[in-house]
Amino acid sequence: MSKLQEISKNRNYTAINAGGMDTWKEYSMIHPKNGQEVTGKVFLKEATRATGTEISLDVIPPKSELPYFHIHKKNEETYIILKGAGYFQVDEDCFPVEAGSIIRIAPEGNRGIRNTSGEEMVYICIQSKENSLEEYSTGNGERVPPLR
Amino acid sequence: MSKLQEISKNRNYTAINAGGMDTWKEYSMIHPKNGQEVTGKVFLKEATRATGTEISLDVIPPKSELPYFHIHKKNEETYIILKGAGYFQVDEDCFPVEAGSIIRIAPEGNRGIRNTSGEEMVYICIQSKENSLEEYSTGNGERVPPLR
Repeated sequence: MSKLQEISKNRNYTAINAGGMDTWKEYSMIHPKNGQEVTGKVFLKEATRATGTEISLDVIPPKSELPYFHIHKKNEETYIILKGAGYFQVDEDCFPVEAGSIIRIAPEGNRGIRNTSGEEMVYICIQSKENSLEEYSTGNGERVPPLR
Repeated sequence: MSKLQEISKNRNYTAINAGGMDTWKEYSMIHPKNGQEVTGKVFLKEATRATGTEISLDVIPPKSELPYFHIHKKNEETYIILKGAGYFQVDEDCFPVEAGSIIRIAPEGNRGIRNTSGEEMVYICIQSKENSLEEYSTGNGERVPPLR
């Protein structure tokens, strides 16, 4: 079983190593609601001490699908597919996805995902509170003199 | 130059195709503050109609670095390194990173990144408002009956 490893931390940051994406299938967790083991999934918020996102690294085995559809209460989700190909469904819409597909879903969207390819489907899923972002693009950044 | 392409959308979602990560270096944008072209970077918020995150796909050429350090006003950032290897700096700390490294930085952290490897460094950068997340892990999700 893989483990998130801390690289470095200080007042303004936490850095971890999750391993390359080919190793993410080795992560597993016990689902807090039903006590079942979920393989190929690791949440990052606790390890990175994030306060605005809950990000997970996810792997679906070849020719298989997430065994459930789900909605969210407050959180928007964005899926970034890095490997594999298959279908994504939101409510009544089902559409093909592949490496490079990115799907943003509102909390109330009923979502499911299926990997129809012969390789693992690898994706990153990002939860954030819907309508929470106030500034974005380059508008929130400010360049500062280098420290070196 | 690459372009984000819409796959499908409806009331509760927007799905786009950004292309596989080997093509992300072809994206470019004009920086709204200084008018200069920034290559190997594309922001996703507008295309995915996200409301809780500003996510960018980023590529740094071999043996090079971002030409600036920066801080943020309100947004936390999380960098997920997918390819390449080098160094990440936050304030006075500099530490090695590689594919699988994930770094969460508070708004006031002064950050920079350098690719010392002979291949492109590919990463995803996620902005979200600091302290905005209220529920997380599986706590915000709710399974629902499949639609099919």
